Amino acid sequence: MLEKITFKTKPDEIIDITDKVQSVVSKSKKDEGAVVVFVAHSTCAITTIEYEPGLRKDMPSILDKIAPKSADYEHNKTWGDGNGYSHIRASLIGPSLTVPFEHGELCLGQWQQIVLMELDTRPRERTVLVKITS
Amino acid sequence: MLEKITFKTKPDEIIDITDKVQSVVSKSKKDEGAVVVFVAHSTCAITTIEYEPGLRKDMPSILDKIAPKSADYEHNKTWGDGNGYSHIRASLIGPSLTVPFEHGELCLGQWQQIVLMELDTRPRERTVLVKITS
Amino acid sequence: MLEKITFKTKPDEIIDITDKVQSVVSKSKKDEGAVVVFVAHSTCAITTIEYEPGLRKDMPSILDKIAPKSADYEHNKTWGDGNGYSHIRASLIGPSLTVPFEHGELCLGQWQQIVLMELDTRPRERTVLVKITS
Repeated sequence: MLEKITFKTKPDEIIDITDKVQSVVSKSKKDEGAVVVFVAHSTCAITTIEYEPGLRKDMPSILDKIAPKSADYEHNKTWGDGNGYSHIRASLIGPSLTVPFEHGELCLGQWQQIVLMELDTRPRERTVLVKITS
Repeated sequence: MLEKITFKTKPDEIIDITDKVQSVVSKSKKDEGAVVVFVAHSTCAITTIEYEPGLRKDMPSILDKIAPKSADYEHNKTWGDGNGYSHIRASLIGPSLTVPFEHGELCLGQWQQIVLMELDTRPRERTVLVKITS
Repeated sequence: MLEKITFKTKPDEIIDITDKVQSVVSKSKKDEGAVVVFVAHSTCAITTIEYEPGLRKDMPSILDKIAPKSADYEHNKTWGDGNGYSHIRASLIGPSLTVPFEHGELCLGQWQQIVLMELDTRPRERTVLVKITS
């Protein structure tokens, strides 16, 4: 089973997508397996985090030290779209995550949520793929 | 098949869990497949590394440049638990890894081990999930 | 199905391996699934990126801020091979990626390619494993 879920995002936004992923697991009626969560875009990323307001500010702040918005990027010379930092951040964090599930429930920690990170410069519509594997 | 393995950890510790993951692959008696290794906590991570004493010091040292222990984090204002850097590091490295296996053996490089990285501020007990997929 | 693909690489090189991965998906004749891409070496990494000349320069440049080639590494004291930064970079980005496919085609974004990143100090021959899961 493969489902596609669409999200409207804003720059630097981190969106908790755990419930949406759990819905696909529940709908599959499978007891045990692993679910692949993949974002089909080159300027956003998928990971886990404790979803609370402090970390949602800390993460963009640390990412701006790793790949600063204000730095010069060769990418911007190619396209002139000013999102070189977005691509670099996305490649470092990565677009895919695989989470086991058991008794029809994602095996996440108590403070661990699955998130989509918008890393681009403007609001976007994003597609996340959720694939159940056996 | 889904197995849970528990590890006792110390801050900044990197633990070689390759043998434990291989044991689950062997126990499954499957010849070929892929194994998902997932840590169900928001302040530790799973990756591969050459498991030797030098890199076990270099990694925490580089991580302290990326997300310094001494920096201010909004997360610490939310909870007062002082582990904002732990969460950021964990989200950047990620909690999941998928490794193919063949002839019942993990397809790892000669100098490549699967590791659990403890990123939190105090000793913890951690659960790693090992899920065999077909 | 598990296939092994070999690549000859140069230091700091980023290689677009999307077509090779798609070939394995096509050869499997499966309509839907997920493909695991794994590099069995401790000094290179797998991720996605928009494969264009600018970013292929920006990525090594940002990585050199994260784990500089010129820094001192304990790893180099152990082996004297001078690639401590290669190991650290590889562990941070990670060796594995899982991509869903549908109608026999990888579900990638329009500007999103699967890449092998060579992070070591000299030309190498590298093996990438491509495993089809159901």
